[in-house]
Amino acid sequence: MTTPSRAPSRATRSDVARLAGVSPAVVSYVVNGTKRVAPETEERVRSAVARLGYRPNPSARALRLGSTETLGMIVPSATNPYFAHLAHEVEVAASRRGYALLTANADGSLETERRHLEHLSARLVDGIFLCSSTHDPVLRDVDLQGIPIVLLNHSAAAPSRDAVGVDLAGGARLAVEHLAGHGHERIGLIVGRATGTDEDGRETGWRRSLEELGLALGPIGRGEFSPDGGYAAMRHLVRSDAVPRALFVASDQMARGVLKVAHEMGIRVPEDLAIVSFDGSIDAAYSWPTLTSVAQPVAAMAEAAVDALLSASAEPRSRIMTTSLVVGGSCGC
Amino acid sequence: MTTPSRAPSRATRSDVARLAGVSPAVVSYVVNGTKRVAPETEERVRSAVARLGYRPNPSARALRLGSTETLGMIVPSATNPYFAHLAHEVEVAASRRGYALLTANADGSLETERRHLEHLSARLVDGIFLCSSTHDPVLRDVDLQGIPIVLLNHSAAAPSRDAVGVDLAGGARLAVEHLAGHGHERIGLIVGRATGTDEDGRETGWRRSLEELGLALGPIGRGEFSPDGGYAAMRHLVRSDAVPRALFVASDQMARGVLKVAHEMGIRVPEDLAIVSFDGSIDAAYSWPTLTSVAQPVAAMAEAAVDALLSASAEPRSRIMTTSLVVGGSCGC
Repeated sequence: MTTPSRAPSRATRSDVARLAGVSPAVVSYVVNGTKRVAPETEERVRSAVARLGYRPNPSARALRLGSTETLGMIVPSATNPYFAHLAHEVEVAASRRGYALLTANADGSLETERRHLEHLSARLVDGIFLCSSTHDPVLRDVDLQGIPIVLLNHSAAAPSRDAVGVDLAGGARLAVEHLAGHGHERIGLIVGRATGTDEDGRETGWRRSLEELGLALGPIGRGEFSPDGGYAAMRHLVRSDAVPRALFVASDQMARGVLKVAHEMGIRVPEDLAIVSFDGSIDAAYSWPTLTSVAQPVAAMAEAAVDALLSASAEPRSRIMTTSLVVGGSCGC
Repeated sequence: MTTPSRAPSRATRSDVARLAGVSPAVVSYVVNGTKRVAPETEERVRSAVARLGYRPNPSARALRLGSTETLGMIVPSATNPYFAHLAHEVEVAASRRGYALLTANADGSLETERRHLEHLSARLVDGIFLCSSTHDPVLRDVDLQGIPIVLLNHSAAAPSRDAVGVDLAGGARLAVEHLAGHGHERIGLIVGRATGTDEDGRETGWRRSLEELGLALGPIGRGEFSPDGGYAAMRHLVRSDAVPRALFVASDQMARGVLKVAHEMGIRVPEDLAIVSFDGSIDAAYSWPTLTSVAQPVAAMAEAAVDALLSASAEPRSRIMTTSLVVGGSCGC
C-alpha cells in the first residue's frame, strides 16, 4: 500500500542510521530506549534524529516494544473541567484505536510541563498530547526520544508541529455579534492574563469585532480561568463602577464567578447584565440562568489530535476548528 | 537504621529468592521487569511474591531502576470534579516527596480498572492509588508485580490492603441531624445506585440517623453521581409528587442537578426545599444558592494515602477520616 502523502519527505530509520554512521538497530535502541549504547553514539543518533525530524511510527514502535499501547497527555490544569472533558474525549478516541491514556498535570508550570514531557517520552508512552500553558512551548531543548507530539488546545500557529485548536478570535466574534444583535453598544470583556508573548485570541477577536461594528471598547476585567478568577475580575469591575450591560466572558468557569457576584449584588441576568461565555461545557448547562456560550467542538478536537498523533505524517499541520453558539438564558434571547 | 515497625513480618527479597529457589538478583529482574528470565522461573518468583506478600520498598526500587519517581492513580471518573480535586491533592502531596503523578480513568469499568492496574504496575510507576468503582475491588488475580497499592476514597473495610476514605455514614448523620435541627421531619435522599454488594455508606447513615431520631424514611431518588444524575433523580421525585421539604443529596454534583430542577419549577431553596449535600467542593461554593455541604478532608486524605503508599508498612491499615459541615445558603440557616 502506498502512502503518497507521507512518502516524499518522511525520514526513515535507515536515513537516521546513515547520517549517524550506525546500524538501524542502534537507532532503535536509542529511540526506544531498549538498550544502552555508548554516550557518544547516542549523541550522534540523537542529532541525526533531530536534524532529519525523524519520528518513528508509534504503532510499529509499540509492536517492537511489545506494545506500550499507551499515550500521554499533559494538561495545564487538571482541576479545570474543560481539560477534564477534553482529556476524556481524547481517551475515548484513543481507546477506539486500542490505546490507553495517562494524564499528567503541569499545574501552570512550564518547568513541570517540561519534566512530564521528558519523563513520559523517555519510558512510558508512544506519543504525547501537549496542552501547554503557553502559546509558544519551548520543545527544542526537550529530549522527546523521537516520539511524536501533538499540540492540543493550541490555537496559535505552530509551523513545526502538529497542532489542534479552535478559532478563538472567530468564537469571540460570535459572542460579540450576538450581544450587539441584542442592541448592546457597550460590551465588556472578562478574560485571563496572557502567559506568553501573544494576546489571547478571544481578546483579539473581541476588540476587532467591536472595531468592525463601530463600537467603543467596553471595560476589561482580568483573572485566572476559574470561578475564583471570574469572581475577582467581576468584583473589580463592580468596585470600579464599570459594570457594563453586556459581557463576553472568556470561559464558562469564569462565568460561574461572574454569576455569583451578580446573585450577591442583585444584578439580574440577563435583564441588567447579558452574558455570553466560552466553552459550551456542562457548567454552562448547570448554571442559573443557563449560560449562552460559544461551544468548542471538544470531541472533534480530540479525534483530530489522536488522528494526528497516530498517523505521524511528515508534514506538520495545524488544524484550527470553528466554534458554534449554544443559546442559554444569560444573553436575553 | 532499624525500622522496628516493619521488621517482624515484612518479607524480604531474600525470602522470595529462597522460596522460589533463585538468586535475589533474579527476583529483582522479575519484580522490576529489568531483565527477561525463563517463563517458568518468572512463574516461580511470582508465586513466591504472592505467597509471601512481598512488596519492594518503592524508593529503593526507584533507585535501582534509575528512579521512576512516578506514582499512578486510577479514578472511576475523570470528569467528576471531586476526583479531579482528589487527584490534584495527591499530586501536590506526592510532589513534596519528589514524585510525579500520572492518572488513568477507568470510566466506571472494572475491566478498564484492571487493565490500568496491570499496565501501570508492569512498567510505569512505583505505586498505585486505586479509587475503585466498587467497594470490593478484585485484586487477587491482578498481577501487580509486587508494587504497593493503596485503596483511596475507600470507606469499606479492606483488611488486606492499605486504605484511606471517609466515614460516609457519619457524614450522612451530620446532614440529617442538621436538617432535623431546622425542624424537618420528612427528609428525603438523593443518592447513586450501588455498584457492588454493599450499600453506599451515605444511604446507611441517612436511614440509621432517621431511625434514631424517630423519623420516618423520606422518599429516595437515584441516579448517577453527576449533575445529570441529580437532575434525573429530582425529576423522578417531582413526577411522583414526592418532593419533600428537605433533602440530603449524596454529592455536590448531584445537588447541581437538583438545584436546576428547583429553578425550573420555581421551587425556592431553602424556603420550599432545604438541601444539604456532600463533598464540600468548589461546586458547593459556586451554586446558587450556595450549598450547605458535608465536606470531605480531601487534602488530608491525599496526604495519608501518599504516606501509606511510600511507607509500605507491613500491616495494612484502613484510615477512615471524619467529615465536617460547611454551611451555605441551601439549608435555611
